Amino acid sequence: MRTGMNYFESNPWLIGENEFQTDWLGKAETVMCLGNGYMGIRSATEESYIGEKRDTFVAGTFNKFDDNEVTELPNVPDLIGMDIRLNNKRLDLTNGEVQGYQRTLNLKTGELIRSFVWEYKEVKAAFTFKRFVSFSEKHLLGQSVEIKNLSNGLDLEINSGIDGQVTNNGSQHFTEGDKALAEGKYMQMMPYTGTSNIFFVLSTVHQLVKKQDIYEETKKRIEMGRRKIYNRYWLSLEKNEAVTIEKISSIHTSMDKETAGQTLNEVKDLALEGLKSAREKGYQVLLASSAKAWEKQVWSVLPITIASNNFKDQLAINFAKYHLHVMTPAHDERMNIGAKGLSGEGYKGHTFWDTEIFMLPYFTFTHPKIAESLVTYRYLGLEGAHKKALSNGFEGAQFPWEAAWPDDGETTPVWGAADIITGKPTKIWSGFIEQHITSDVTFGIKQFIDVTNNQQFAREKGYEVILDTAKFWASRLEWQEDRQRYEILHVVGPDEYKEQIDNNAFTNYTAHWNISLAMKLYQTLKTEETVIFEKLNEKLELDRVYEEWQEKINKLYLPQPNKEGVIPQDDTYLSKDILDLTTYKNSSHVGTLFHDYNLEQVNDMQVTKQADVLLLLFLFEDLFPKKEKLINWNYYEPKTLHDSSLSLSTHAILAADLGKLDLSYDLFNQAMNIDMGENMASSNEGIHAASLGGIWQMTVFGYGGVRCLNGKLRIEPHLPEAWHRLAFGIIWQGNPLDVTVTKEQMIIVNQGTKDVEVEAFGTLHSVSNELIINL
Amino acid sequence: MRTGMNYFESNPWLIGENEFQTDWLGKAETVMCLGNGYMGIRSATEESYIGEKRDTFVAGTFNKFDDNEVTELPNVPDLIGMDIRLNNKRLDLTNGEVQGYQRTLNLKTGELIRSFVWEYKEVKAAFTFKRFVSFSEKHLLGQSVEIKNLSNGLDLEINSGIDGQVTNNGSQHFTEGDKALAEGKYMQMMPYTGTSNIFFVLSTVHQLVKKQDIYEETKKRIEMGRRKIYNRYWLSLEKNEAVTIEKISSIHTSMDKETAGQTLNEVKDLALEGLKSAREKGYQVLLASSAKAWEKQVWSVLPITIASNNFKDQLAINFAKYHLHVMTPAHDERMNIGAKGLSGEGYKGHTFWDTEIFMLPYFTFTHPKIAESLVTYRYLGLEGAHKKALSNGFEGAQFPWEAAWPDDGETTPVWGAADIITGKPTKIWSGFIEQHITSDVTFGIKQFIDVTNNQQFAREKGYEVILDTAKFWASRLEWQEDRQRYEILHVVGPDEYKEQIDNNAFTNYTAHWNISLAMKLYQTLKTEETVIFEKLNEKLELDRVYEEWQEKINKLYLPQPNKEGVIPQDDTYLSKDILDLTTYKNSSHVGTLFHDYNLEQVNDMQVTKQADVLLLLFLFEDLFPKKEKLINWNYYEPKTLHDSSLSLSTHAILAADLGKLDLSYDLFNQAMNIDMGENMASSNEGIHAASLGGIWQMTVFGYGGVRCLNGKLRIEPHLPEAWHRLAFGIIWQGNPLDVTVTKEQMIIVNQGTKDVEVEAFGTLHSVSNELIINL
Repeated sequence: MRTGMNYFESNPWLIGENEFQTDWLGKAETVMCLGNGYMGIRSATEESYIGEKRDTFVAGTFNKFDDNEVTELPNVPDLIGMDIRLNNKRLDLTNGEVQGYQRTLNLKTGELIRSFVWEYKEVKAAFTFKRFVSFSEKHLLGQSVEIKNLSNGLDLEINSGIDGQVTNNGSQHFTEGDKALAEGKYMQMMPYTGTSNIFFVLSTVHQLVKKQDIYEETKKRIEMGRRKIYNRYWLSLEKNEAVTIEKISSIHTSMDKETAGQTLNEVKDLALEGLKSAREKGYQVLLASSAKAWEKQVWSVLPITIASNNFKDQLAINFAKYHLHVMTPAHDERMNIGAKGLSGEGYKGHTFWDTEIFMLPYFTFTHPKIAESLVTYRYLGLEGAHKKALSNGFEGAQFPWEAAWPDDGETTPVWGAADIITGKPTKIWSGFIEQHITSDVTFGIKQFIDVTNNQQFAREKGYEVILDTAKFWASRLEWQEDRQRYEILHVVGPDEYKEQIDNNAFTNYTAHWNISLAMKLYQTLKTEETVIFEKLNEKLELDRVYEEWQEKINKLYLPQPNKEGVIPQDDTYLSKDILDLTTYKNSSHVGTLFHDYNLEQVNDMQVTKQADVLLLLFLFEDLFPKKEKLINWNYYEPKTLHDSSLSLSTHAILAADLGKLDLSYDLFNQAMNIDMGENMASSNEGIHAASLGGIWQMTVFGYGGVRCLNGKLRIEPHLPEAWHRLAFGIIWQGNPLDVTVTKEQMIIVNQGTKDVEVEAFGTLHSVSNELIINL
Repeated sequence: MRTGMNYFESNPWLIGENEFQTDWLGKAETVMCLGNGYMGIRSATEESYIGEKRDTFVAGTFNKFDDNEVTELPNVPDLIGMDIRLNNKRLDLTNGEVQGYQRTLNLKTGELIRSFVWEYKEVKAAFTFKRFVSFSEKHLLGQSVEIKNLSNGLDLEINSGIDGQVTNNGSQHFTEGDKALAEGKYMQMMPYTGTSNIFFVLSTVHQLVKKQDIYEETKKRIEMGRRKIYNRYWLSLEKNEAVTIEKISSIHTSMDKETAGQTLNEVKDLALEGLKSAREKGYQVLLASSAKAWEKQVWSVLPITIASNNFKDQLAINFAKYHLHVMTPAHDERMNIGAKGLSGEGYKGHTFWDTEIFMLPYFTFTHPKIAESLVTYRYLGLEGAHKKALSNGFEGAQFPWEAAWPDDGETTPVWGAADIITGKPTKIWSGFIEQHITSDVTFGIKQFIDVTNNQQFAREKGYEVILDTAKFWASRLEWQEDRQRYEILHVVGPDEYKEQIDNNAFTNYTAHWNISLAMKLYQTLKTEETVIFEKLNEKLELDRVYEEWQEKINKLYLPQPNKEGVIPQDDTYLSKDILDLTTYKNSSHVGTLFHDYNLEQVNDMQVTKQADVLLLLFLFEDLFPKKEKLINWNYYEPKTLHDSSLSLSTHAILAADLGKLDLSYDLFNQAMNIDMGENMASSNEGIHAASLGGIWQMTVFGYGGVRCLNGKLRIEPHLPEAWHRLAFGIIWQGNPLDVTVTKEQMIIVNQGTKDVEVEAFGTLHSVSNELIINL
């Protein structure tokens, strides 16, 4: 396969492409997408192409198109697009000659730059497109387009404004709303969502600069059409003359906390004032302020450096951190991270277990304030979780498989793509029976409390979630009279290629863990935190449910290793047919198994989509001896297709734990290439958020060897062959620790105020200032 | 300007293009659009391009996107599009080399054919795309795509099915609905409109033929996505090998009369059976049946032949008739003709006065059954007209300026495009005060009754409309105490560049005519048709309103000629500033005046958009002496921009009446070129239906000299210099008349059973078999 991506050995902050291909639009739009947690914008080009997906999302602004669809993040009217004509020929890179094409995202500054010389018949011009979404002023985005005429006289026509004709693959979430023009140049559009009734204020203004002068006298005309407001400019350039068009835009909505309760007109006026002031500053000043915020809030915080034979490793961790911050709505605890971030329509902006198991650990260990916002979202989600439990006939908090607004409850669509055999849409069972999400949420909260020691959160929010989820699990258990035990039947585990199975190991073990955790917490609170206990007891009837927990916990069936030591993934997995998976495992695309089999058939094979038993062994490694891990690795890995982006990073870490460092590093490379690699179609629907969290986990948990086990910190690093040195940081219970690992030694520097206990290779150390361990 | 259209001197049935330009997509989509009155499909190409507008409409299936929009014809999921890849390169005529490009619509058969050879790098293949919308089976459409490989081995990938992601410029009218697949190849999609709740059943099937064999074993895969169902085919072609893909599709809706009351599943099954049987027949057989229907129902009926120095004149009349039948829902009297037919989103599928004044005469004089359906629509529209009158505080029937479903009442949008000075949307006054529509409806019905002598329609429906509209007008008149007369204040006349004016001549005269007509009818019915009279008297309180008519009719102010003989267009027009319009009149685009002035400014100038006083003089020529016509022509024509497609044809006829045949013929050419000409952007929003009616009127009324005046037939032909012979036909009160005109004589042959009275040049003739008049 031809390489499509462009990397720079000398600079681990740049990722881009040096060839323009319309078949690769989706990849570039996703991988180089811009955002700041408030908004995310796919990097569609200014000019349009067939195959593009022009998406802008604002976190939390969910809407349902109609009663037959699930709620999703609406695609906001486009502010980026521009129609550019040169001597009346539309700029179109698939025509004519393109020289020196470069499109590069600078992860450090958040600026995307595209430059090339375009020659078409008598037209020749050099273009430089720049843009950023501000990391310092979350409502703002800026664009700069320089066009330099390299031909003889050139007539330019530029049509740019706000385009509200975009949809979510055909579903239009917005009522058109008003359009307005101020002072002949400030354009505004005020659509609102059809059912959730959220108003948006989209504002934009242009400024043309020619020969250093602001160029106001250009011939122009405002044009309003259906769902559109545009300004059309005409100008002429002499040979070697250049013009720069700056376009500054902003987005506000009625969900914004800082303007909560304000009317549309108030927000509109405020947006206009903000835009005027931003226009005064201009592109460069706004960009500098944004880059500074990136440096302060992200890059200077616990930086990770990797000295590796492979320069892409450092790029990968920068790439992962960039996107984790682009996608995370750190500003508002009513919002969480979508499985595709804010970079695509895939998964509709919904939050899955991906947050707790894959992305949250990065924030928990390095940005505890952001992590607190993310776990608070789950606390606020108790309302939705109660709804779901109640509608399913259970008690307590059953978290939705897919979550949108906290009180929405379950938002998983019921029907998915076509079955190849019957041609009928397949039912998506996850929303009904993929129930491990509830213990995953508890897992994330427990880890957050352990790592941050945020007692206020624990007391006001976290404990309640732990207890309420345990209450759900207890009500969920099914007594089997014949076997004299409780079981959990008819579920989907992490391996979604097995639908409607009984006693999925991951589900049963994590449910058991969740209840046990709640039982310990009950005892602790009752004896040590009586005020909190009484409050929660009243709210959740703890005394009553504690009896239930006591009665059930020891009778809950936990699938035990068979005589070979293999933990059965579920009751029937081990008795199913074993298939030769070579073709599918070697395929550069995921899901190829379904070109030959339907889900019903796959259900009857020992084929696993993603880490299931192995994920259990990673997350709860203290529950299982190392030997059992190896046996299960050897059994399950060959049967796993890694058809989910949630699979490779877990396997890479486990492989490292098991001493299979070469294999681990191979998996690390596969995992980073899910988005960064050469498969130019894999990211079309959006970025793989869990995989990005996985890059950080492979680095810090896998090779850095960090674990939080039973509330204790353990650091047991082991670098792969290619890495000479790894430096990273974590914050343990408020104390920043700088960790430097080479092949020979590990140095931990405690930058905090308290001593930190660290277990390493069987020894417990108390780190006051510095700890050096020879490896 | 480069020529974009392709005509054939040897064949007046073909119109097309021999160069592919993405800037011309809209023109080709409109001018070569296909349809059968049930559905209309813009001729977007199979492969997609930026700038295309992919529209399919089904007559009468109106829906409102939300409460802030007006009802419109929804853009139905696309059945035409195909993604074709050759060696993994998407077919894209803007890339590579295109040889022998031809796209041609055959007006006679209704078949659209596009052919070319495409060469891109190592790929070279010859393509022939054919398609038609069946004129014999109104639910059906067919496509045939032949691809012949001219390179070495060629891998083809074809992705084709049903695409429901299309919108009306961003507004999505459909709930996604179910998708289904039968026998691995019949695909169906069942969306329904969001507010009007009309279900659609879209069905399609492919058949591949290679070396004369139906080619079932191709590798293929069904793919369902959001609002999409597709079949993807992979096949290889050896050098010089060809494959033909036939795609047969159908559309049914819950509005279809023949399946009224049936459930979605019943219609779905019926559609599937129909599609199976159509697939058996195949493209060629289905096309032949459709072409036969065109011949029988259109081309063999009263054919028009023009022997002219300019071969485009014959093409123009064929083009006009083709499109008039493509756009007219002859099958269902609950539907009428849209101002853009079924060929674009412009005017939202709404019916205007364009029907009665411009298109209806063609049907009235040549297809009385279709005309009856169109006037019956207005009778059914009385319900909506009552609503409108009532909401405006009037009595009787006030017809809506824009009409959709008969009982909708007014459907004109309230806000239009931006004002260039204020930047705010301009209010569209037509729906409120462009009131002449009501007398226009009466005019069309009166002409229909006079020409067809359809007494049953008159008695059951037509008379009631005439009386009910007069009742509206009487209630509308405003007594002016100071001038002791009734006036009609605050209206928009046909000249829409004058908003909110008083005593528009066209409005006052036609209101007067409408009331007078009703008064005569009252007298006739009361004495000659007592049963009908009593029924209507009871329903409409005729005795009471007749007294009102008597009281008001002679006091209604009719603007009189000034001392120069100019009839004032309204109370203030003649006192406004006169502008030099040369630049604007010479512009190849309409509306250019608004690049320099806003509507408020234009309101204060003697500038007319389209025939206003002059239209009055044409429609009611017996009310005004010829000398007055000439004076008013000389006054108004120089002030008229012809910025509406409703203007040129009226002027061409009047010019012919006034003996200005050269000028008339010049206007005829301008008029035909509104759609057929070289302005490659003028038809983007859809075809100009009124202008097509105008082509027929210029031919038959203008040069054929046909008029129905006061219920009498008059024929006074006068051919333009370029025309040697004109043969046409009309049906006068059931009697088909063939009329042949040369410079020397006119021959009328009566093919009917009754003698027909014809006035010609001041003499009344009774035509039994043949009448020859030397000119």
